[in-house]
Amino acid sequence: MTAWNVFEIMGIVAFAVSGALTGIQKRVDIFGVLVLAVTTAVGGGIMRDVIIGNTPPLTFRDPTFFIISAIATIGVCFTYRWLDKFKHTIQIFDAIGLGAFTATSANLAIEHNLNTLFIVTTVAVITGIGGSVLRDVFVKEIPYVFRQEVYAITTIAGAISFYYAQFYFTGNIPLYLCFCITTGLRICCIMYGINFPVIGVNSGGRT
Amino acid sequence: MTAWNVFEIMGIVAFAVSGALTGIQKRVDIFGVLVLAVTTAVGGGIMRDVIIGNTPPLTFRDPTFFIISAIATIGVCFTYRWLDKFKHTIQIFDAIGLGAFTATSANLAIEHNLNTLFIVTTVAVITGIGGSVLRDVFVKEIPYVFRQEVYAITTIAGAISFYYAQFYFTGNIPLYLCFCITTGLRICCIMYGINFPVIGVNSGGRT
Amino acid sequence: MTAWNVFEIMGIVAFAVSGALTGIQKRVDIFGVLVLAVTTAVGGGIMRDVIIGNTPPLTFRDPTFFIISAIATIGVCFTYRWLDKFKHTIQIFDAIGLGAFTATSANLAIEHNLNTLFIVTTVAVITGIGGSVLRDVFVKEIPYVFRQEVYAITTIAGAISFYYAQFYFTGNIPLYLCFCITTGLRICCIMYGINFPVIGVNSGGRT
Repeated sequence: MTAWNVFEIMGIVAFAVSGALTGIQKRVDIFGVLVLAVTTAVGGGIMRDVIIGNTPPLTFRDPTFFIISAIATIGVCFTYRWLDKFKHTIQIFDAIGLGAFTATSANLAIEHNLNTLFIVTTVAVITGIGGSVLRDVFVKEIPYVFRQEVYAITTIAGAISFYYAQFYFTGNIPLYLCFCITTGLRICCIMYGINFPVIGVNSGGRT
Repeated sequence: MTAWNVFEIMGIVAFAVSGALTGIQKRVDIFGVLVLAVTTAVGGGIMRDVIIGNTPPLTFRDPTFFIISAIATIGVCFTYRWLDKFKHTIQIFDAIGLGAFTATSANLAIEHNLNTLFIVTTVAVITGIGGSVLRDVFVKEIPYVFRQEVYAITTIAGAISFYYAQFYFTGNIPLYLCFCITTGLRICCIMYGINFPVIGVNSGGRT
Repeated sequence: MTAWNVFEIMGIVAFAVSGALTGIQKRVDIFGVLVLAVTTAVGGGIMRDVIIGNTPPLTFRDPTFFIISAIATIGVCFTYRWLDKFKHTIQIFDAIGLGAFTATSANLAIEHNLNTLFIVTTVAVITGIGGSVLRDVFVKEIPYVFRQEVYAITTIAGAISFYYAQFYFTGNIPLYLCFCITTGLRICCIMYGINFPVIGVNSGGRT
């Protein structure tokens, strides 16, 4: 198991925890909690694979991520009352996972000969935000990534850096560069509470 | 027309009726009622085919299921005031259809050389619940299968039995075994009103 | 740039404007406004390509439509307060775009050897309404095309005319015939305010 696997697992755990907590909060049954956790964790990757024609999606061929999501869900079911204390740890895990998935998705696009800046970036964004968009649609919320926080833009920055880095560096350097930029930017946004502006907000005191 | 076709048609009718009734209840127009009925009936199969790379989906190549859904929708439009009396009949049809679709989906996965227990099971679950998840997302409800009743778990039991049965039996035996287990379990759950627990329910008197 | 490109661009602009306006109205952030605009503009085409197995979808291979959507979004962000005055212009653009996309989608289906009336029609409908269904699901609305106005039916009429015209005419004649029928019917429906009936409406004074 490489460091990379550890990053990916941290991401899957963070995504699954957010899905499971959402499910518990919305009072769905335990099957629903599991589905929401798994969907949040692997939904973005499934969308990516369906779009680039990489079927059946990786998640279906190798159930590792599914199993990790299921274990995380069971963990959440027993500990959800105290998870609020670990909110920042989960956010850091999430940022690390986002970096890892951005890099692997950008790399996967290149491996499938989808070799343009546009496709590498959009594929990375879909992988990064797809799962949480599905989660929010399932529980009747306007997707969180559309409403608050700078999330997808860090993926875009990482994917662009990957695209250009692969022309100059070989081996794993582009992957790690992409990871550092995405995760680093995301952690900065969390620390300094940076949000995108909402248009029309200045027209009144409404939130 | 074999017995199997009859099972599938009963399922398509039950799914389409549930979609059409939802549409009427949510006061969408007649085109919306038709789309909801068709989506509920064939949405799970389309998701399955897109995921396993079986494109264009079977439904698009052979419009039989679409035509049956459309006829069921027209029927519902004229009889929806009295359909409540046939609630149990529709539930039985739904259980029979769920069994038939679970078996054909598990079989389709095997035919596409997706020959692992994990993929056979997930493909069967997606086919079984995909349509009703889409229906509920379209009408702004948290999917019913996440909230109440033991539904998908009967599909999982059926798919597992199919996967192991195909090693020991030939011909249609695995199909019929899967059908009997899925449909039988589902009817038991309906008769005894078995629901999954909701986490946190014991912490207060809330529903 | 042919007249056809102009029609498609008018459609993309109209779709993107409707997505961006929805986003501003629902108070999502500027990233969300962009995603909603792009999804509305190209979502139907992506669904079509995933379903017919034309992966990666055209939009990912050629970012022209994405760029036009992004420019339209920027324009809307600066002018949304006054766009209400151009409501009818946007509707006309939308009708023109609907006609163009119906024709290109029907043609694409034929080019992929999906040569039945049923598949040509459903593929055209999915392309025509897919984007706006996604937009409405993202912002927690029951899709507008299910609730009001005769929208998809004009696409169906156009696709049917395309299917039969290709047996008798060569070159671009079927494309233009399909375009004229779809756009013409749609404009008639707007002008005369034709809506589909809602079932049960006559049972009381409810809306």
